Amino acid sequence: MKLLFLGDVVGKSGRDAVAERLPGIIATYGFDFVVINGENASHGRGLTESHFKGLRDAGADIVTLGDHAFDQREALSYIERENTLLRPINFAPGAPGRGAMMVEGRNGHRVLVVNAIGRVFMQPMDDPFRAVEAALAAAPLGEVVDAVIVDFHTEATSEIQGMGFFLDGKATLVVGTHTHIPTSDHRILRGGTALMADAGMCGDFDSIIGVDAEEPLNRFLTGIPNGRFTPAEGEATLCGVAVETDPRTGLAKKVLPVRIGGTLAQALPDF
Amino acid sequence: MKLLFLGDVVGKSGRDAVAERLPGIIATYGFDFVVINGENASHGRGLTESHFKGLRDAGADIVTLGDHAFDQREALSYIERENTLLRPINFAPGAPGRGAMMVEGRNGHRVLVVNAIGRVFMQPMDDPFRAVEAALAAAPLGEVVDAVIVDFHTEATSEIQGMGFFLDGKATLVVGTHTHIPTSDHRILRGGTALMADAGMCGDFDSIIGVDAEEPLNRFLTGIPNGRFTPAEGEATLCGVAVETDPRTGLAKKVLPVRIGGTLAQALPDF
Amino acid sequence: MKLLFLGDVVGKSGRDAVAERLPGIIATYGFDFVVINGENASHGRGLTESHFKGLRDAGADIVTLGDHAFDQREALSYIERENTLLRPINFAPGAPGRGAMMVEGRNGHRVLVVNAIGRVFMQPMDDPFRAVEAALAAAPLGEVVDAVIVDFHTEATSEIQGMGFFLDGKATLVVGTHTHIPTSDHRILRGGTALMADAGMCGDFDSIIGVDAEEPLNRFLTGIPNGRFTPAEGEATLCGVAVETDPRTGLAKKVLPVRIGGTLAQALPDF
Amino acid sequence: MKLLFLGDVVGKSGRDAVAERLPGIIATYGFDFVVINGENASHGRGLTESHFKGLRDAGADIVTLGDHAFDQREALSYIERENTLLRPINFAPGAPGRGAMMVEGRNGHRVLVVNAIGRVFMQPMDDPFRAVEAALAAAPLGEVVDAVIVDFHTEATSEIQGMGFFLDGKATLVVGTHTHIPTSDHRILRGGTALMADAGMCGDFDSIIGVDAEEPLNRFLTGIPNGRFTPAEGEATLCGVAVETDPRTGLAKKVLPVRIGGTLAQALPDF
Ligand SMILES: [Fe+2]
Ligand SMILES: [Fe+2]
Ligand SMILES: [Fe+2]
Ligand SMILES: [Fe+2]
Ligand SMILES: [Fe+2]
Ligand SMILES: [Fe+2]
Ligand SMILES: [Fe+2]
Ligand SMILES: [Fe+2]
Repeated sequence: MKLLFLGDVVGKSGRDAVAERLPGIIATYGFDFVVINGENASHGRGLTESHFKGLRDAGADIVTLGDHAFDQREALSYIERENTLLRPINFAPGAPGRGAMMVEGRNGHRVLVVNAIGRVFMQPMDDPFRAVEAALAAAPLGEVVDAVIVDFHTEATSEIQGMGFFLDGKATLVVGTHTHIPTSDHRILRGGTALMADAGMCGDFDSIIGVDAEEPLNRFLTGIPNGRFTPAEGEATLCGVAVETDPRTGLAKKVLPVRIGGTLAQALPDF
Repeated sequence: MKLLFLGDVVGKSGRDAVAERLPGIIATYGFDFVVINGENASHGRGLTESHFKGLRDAGADIVTLGDHAFDQREALSYIERENTLLRPINFAPGAPGRGAMMVEGRNGHRVLVVNAIGRVFMQPMDDPFRAVEAALAAAPLGEVVDAVIVDFHTEATSEIQGMGFFLDGKATLVVGTHTHIPTSDHRILRGGTALMADAGMCGDFDSIIGVDAEEPLNRFLTGIPNGRFTPAEGEATLCGVAVETDPRTGLAKKVLPVRIGGTLAQALPDF
Repeated sequence: MKLLFLGDVVGKSGRDAVAERLPGIIATYGFDFVVINGENASHGRGLTESHFKGLRDAGADIVTLGDHAFDQREALSYIERENTLLRPINFAPGAPGRGAMMVEGRNGHRVLVVNAIGRVFMQPMDDPFRAVEAALAAAPLGEVVDAVIVDFHTEATSEIQGMGFFLDGKATLVVGTHTHIPTSDHRILRGGTALMADAGMCGDFDSIIGVDAEEPLNRFLTGIPNGRFTPAEGEATLCGVAVETDPRTGLAKKVLPVRIGGTLAQALPDF
Repeated sequence: MKLLFLGDVVGKSGRDAVAERLPGIIATYGFDFVVINGENASHGRGLTESHFKGLRDAGADIVTLGDHAFDQREALSYIERENTLLRPINFAPGAPGRGAMMVEGRNGHRVLVVNAIGRVFMQPMDDPFRAVEAALAAAPLGEVVDAVIVDFHTEATSEIQGMGFFLDGKATLVVGTHTHIPTSDHRILRGGTALMADAGMCGDFDSIIGVDAEEPLNRFLTGIPNGRFTPAEGEATLCGVAVETDPRTGLAKKVLPVRIGGTLAQALPDF
């Protein structure tokens, strides 16, 4: 089974790149299941229903979110109707939507996807480790599901790595999102779980984390806001990670970075 | 001119890998100048004089530091005697040592190296942007020096990227350290400056940021310390970035990631 | 019923003041129940068994803790044997000890005491609001217990005030600890709950939060540690808050600050 | 000489209380100089020119600001024209306005007022300690000026106390603002400087830090915004501190808390 995970889609640049390239990528490499983090797809802040549908139409089986989950307030309601959209599982009880789902991919595989959010250098949240553990216990890899993908939306490299070791042997892929910069530490841990600290964004890298550089730079230099953050509009690099599973166990057999288009060095998921 | 920068050396594993491999790497690829961040070389915390000398003997022209600069208290004194060891330039006035130096490489090139530290998700410090700007103004690239290397020790990807855009056209390389995870966003900005959000560590990646995984994972799960952090002792991956300069301008002509040894996917600086 | 709450006891200075003055204070004002936060009683960091016993012997019915709960590692074990020592209720499941207890005071009143810890500007923890709510629901004020005292160990004034409004009408007293500075916002909310943002410490105020001023000031000025934090040893001010309850409801009828001894302006609990 | 300092004015409730009561307070107690922190006077966020004038007309000789200084963007321009409005002195160079001023009070006394902002649990800023030290060195107490008032806008009690000890003997009053809760640690340090960790706000205390409790409480409980923060509109308590100086030295002879009106226990500056 071949899995593709793409990191935070940022603005129109990111959405366009997903729409234009993803169908071809899925066809070319034969991906069985695709997850995309969409927390910044709508003007850099949240995800409208129409942009969510765009990601779905392009090929996402599941869309995940993060700290910006409900920046577009309509997400508070339409997330309740959608069974392919996740928000972090460790939001407070009563938050709209769900944080984990088992779905069937295009080729009949059952995949459990979990979205969680970190707490180091981030807002107070419930414990992500216990929340993810419970979700995985409910649908064990190799027994109930054919693959488990965990999107852990984190700032600190220690926290995403902690989750990787914590889930080693129980998940197919543990991948970080949120920093918007792809890392090159993709590897398979001793227990068979693929780990990558950050998938990177799907956005224009001629920017500061997807945002036109001028205003963030102004704030670093002066401390005084002088306008809004607006997503950069150059060509996006689609950033993410591809995993091939061992069909016997559902664990990772191969993990490869993906960087397609835009200004970053390209990496093709050629397996 | 060919430059090599290696990220945070962590513990014995990192030191050993530098000592064993760096001389051969320099010879093989013909590096003219080498900078190594050594802030975690001594048991993960700081840099003793003897470990500093080890990094120098292996081929470092300049060693840089970070938030752990003075964890080994002897560094407060020996740094005053050394003219190839830097601590962040935006430490408070009066801090021992210096944050920028112009030195001559093995082939007669003059290189300005600046070490600075970020403030987002980190401790209060003086403004790194103004401090680095002043250091670069004192020895302009292409006029006084043949290359400018800035090690910006940062947690937040936005802050390192901000420095990259801020210095674009004035530095050869702006590279982040501190997160211990190599990024794959290495690129040359419009003005000719090579940027990479984090060089990654020189340490054992079968770990949480270089530390044996057990205790950090215990703390994530329980919140209660149950021992010290000890550097992992498996084979290190040397992580960093290589830059080839345009001899006319001192700007970057080529930038490539470096990952040698250990458990990460290998990347050779083959230019 | 008359309740006395004393804030964080810091070091020998704080312990001595409690031992010398508390018995007389209890006798003079006729307190029925006394709670003391002891998280800094042992050298500023945690609480040894012998120092815990000292606070008990001086008159504390319950001793509470905070972020320093287990700095003295023996507390990890003796807390399991003690039924009058609390650590924050929202520590991760499995933490030694308990976070809430119903005990009988010297005059037969039943009192529920809850210790919780905040998350704003502090470490990641479980949700304190839900945890405290559950503890109070198990022993409702005016039905099962005659008084409810909540020690919410917090940095941010917004968070302690949030807890006050959250519990208004359900607790007798919601009082903050941790900042070591007494506040003068003691008041009774509309629903009958007494609120005070911080009880202040029992320690020597010729100090920076109870610590001899030299080293903290050095760190503010230089950023470089030059020694340990040691508790100041001048005469302590006992800081806290006194509440008189309405015997019908268990809610607060009167709330008064307490500051006795040392260098602060004195405030006697004269009701 | 008698000085009055009032903490953060919050919204209409705070502005009205200042306008109605301050003239009478000044007359009754014979204050020679009045400083008010106005950073939240306009809808809780910043200070419009017209609200600034209102504070001035009510009797403020100097108005200070904080992290909300420029939330009302017109302050970026009118602050340049005003010689009685201060923003924190340790904002980045080039920020509009000034951080320190020597002015003459109604009775001919010269007073130096300095506004600074802390860095612990706050945004990155220049070093407040060096900035304040330089301002005080330029107009020494007892030589050039008759009183020195420092408004240090801080979150952490350790940082405001650090400033107090740092300036002991060089300032008449070092007072914290920003937490919106008055403290009762007012005292005169060994060197003659009056210190109080936080002046408290001029606002309605039936609130969470001046804000109507509903929305902040909603965010603590759910983590999901459900509306804006709006200042509470009940009767304000004017909170602050009064100091009587020793005319020979300009140091503090007496320091007393001030709490007038609203729901807090009253404290009159009766000297
Ligand atoms: Fe994002
Ligand atoms: Fe995010
Ligand atoms: Fe570091
Ligand atoms: Fe490091
Ligand atoms: Fe504490
Ligand atoms: Fe404490
Ligand atoms: Fe304020
Ligand atoms: Fe403020």
